[in-house]
Amino acid sequence: MSTAQLDFDEWFQSTVAHTTAVLDEFLPAVDEGHQRLHEAMRYAVLGPGKRVRAALVYAAGEASLEAGSAASAQREGLDYAAAAVEMIHAYSLVHDDLPCMDDDDLRRGRPTVHRRFNEATAMLAGDALQPLAFELLAQMPVAPALIVQAVQLLARSAGSFGMAGGQAIDCDSVGQVLQSEALQQMHRMKTGAMLEASVLLGGIVAGAGSAVREGLEAYAAAVGLAFQVVDDILDVTSDTVTLGKTVGKDAASDKPTYVSVMGLTGSRELLASLREQAHEALRPLGPTACRLGGIADFIVGRNH
Amino acid sequence: MSTAQLDFDEWFQSTVAHTTAVLDEFLPAVDEGHQRLHEAMRYAVLGPGKRVRAALVYAAGEASLEAGSAASAQREGLDYAAAAVEMIHAYSLVHDDLPCMDDDDLRRGRPTVHRRFNEATAMLAGDALQPLAFELLAQMPVAPALIVQAVQLLARSAGSFGMAGGQAIDCDSVGQVLQSEALQQMHRMKTGAMLEASVLLGGIVAGAGSAVREGLEAYAAAVGLAFQVVDDILDVTSDTVTLGKTVGKDAASDKPTYVSVMGLTGSRELLASLREQAHEALRPLGPTACRLGGIADFIVGRNH
Repeated sequence: MSTAQLDFDEWFQSTVAHTTAVLDEFLPAVDEGHQRLHEAMRYAVLGPGKRVRAALVYAAGEASLEAGSAASAQREGLDYAAAAVEMIHAYSLVHDDLPCMDDDDLRRGRPTVHRRFNEATAMLAGDALQPLAFELLAQMPVAPALIVQAVQLLARSAGSFGMAGGQAIDCDSVGQVLQSEALQQMHRMKTGAMLEASVLLGGIVAGAGSAVREGLEAYAAAVGLAFQVVDDILDVTSDTVTLGKTVGKDAASDKPTYVSVMGLTGSRELLASLREQAHEALRPLGPTACRLGGIADFIVGRNH
Repeated sequence: MSTAQLDFDEWFQSTVAHTTAVLDEFLPAVDEGHQRLHEAMRYAVLGPGKRVRAALVYAAGEASLEAGSAASAQREGLDYAAAAVEMIHAYSLVHDDLPCMDDDDLRRGRPTVHRRFNEATAMLAGDALQPLAFELLAQMPVAPALIVQAVQLLARSAGSFGMAGGQAIDCDSVGQVLQSEALQQMHRMKTGAMLEASVLLGGIVAGAGSAVREGLEAYAAAVGLAFQVVDDILDVTSDTVTLGKTVGKDAASDKPTYVSVMGLTGSRELLASLREQAHEALRPLGPTACRLGGIADFIVGRNH
């Protein structure tokens, strides 16, 4: 393992730990307000997770900050933005696991929220995590005009033209044959939109100029798709213990996936090319973008 | 009927019509993005409705704008804020009607969203309406600092310390005996928070100073509670056709209500005193607050 790799692993681990601490702080305490709801929100968000979206926020922020700038307000702002994208991600998993959607019992190796609590509490916990994300963005200690951009981006990415829309296409495509292009479009919305938003939020909060934003966008688009291709590959090649959720679920429910549409080999080839695209997009950004490169490699190489 | 009453009725009717047109414009078109999801979102929002929250935004805006000021940006901003609160309200009804919550078949005299579409689509339509509300606030043509205040207020009011939290208490209180104070607290969160937010958003967008904001807050608190007291009274005194939703539902499901806690007479007395409080709070605001007074009377007097 190279020094760069060891260095990235260390950064990534410390970012996961930092993110978890930040989420813990920003989530409502159990003894404030409605105890059971807050318990469910904390359970949904604080379980073991890769925190890839938060890492993308921090890495994109790093790549966008002026080299050597202290920029402590921006750094603090990144905490809010990182927590916001993780709240949205967590809510989407809680709702996705409900009986009327994927009906999953396991998530990250633990009972899903509706199994641990009940369906109504799971739905409401998801419903309450979503506005919390926007509240956090509104609290960022950066210029109001940047907050407005961030709210607009997160809202668009989570809504019917982003994550929720992709989810709806996914639900309605069960049992159908999707063409490669339609599948790509669905994943761009369902998973890609929020991964891209994470990258761009980091740029917005850190005050990235338009050239840097363009690089971030191209990187984000490649990484967003790569993430889903890996997910689909793991659904057929991993096992339930390693993955922490039920494997073979998509195949069993007859959902179109990259593997079902382009085969295992085709999916792996696509993945290699997306990785190349991600690194290509970072080239103009220089050495501060190295964390983003590391995350692209991590996403492509992950086994759970 | 007095001239003032006729005048209010006319204003209210035209505000309902205006709000519906604004919502129609701000909702995604059916042929953009995912057709079925957008159909469900439009069905949820554009059905017949009293649009009380939107009316509160406009009336509070009216009460806060400088007399005679043109303030066209603020007026346009009120459209976005009014649409945002209606989107949040509509999402909450869609989720509230789902089988894991109230399991209702009828809403405003029509099949509920999950009956007309399916459960997954209903959940996702609600999930997508929520970020749309925040996106609309972010698009208001007013100072970014005011948008940030608006986002913070809406997020707080919709989240676990507001509407979603109240909903969770409501779910968990089925079959329990709530004291009058606990019941009040639950309704302050469940219904009151968003009604109050509507009033305060109107004030924020129209640039209300702190004295006006204080008046609006006191008014909003009284009206928020009054709304729920009326709901509980109607649940036992109205019929399904007039109400457009299943009556006797709360009583049948053993949910604590104002009527079950303080009886019909006690509830009506409380209502009269809340109406008085609302008008009292408006007194310092002068004649531009007359629409707010009219809405308080309308809420107390409504029969569906």
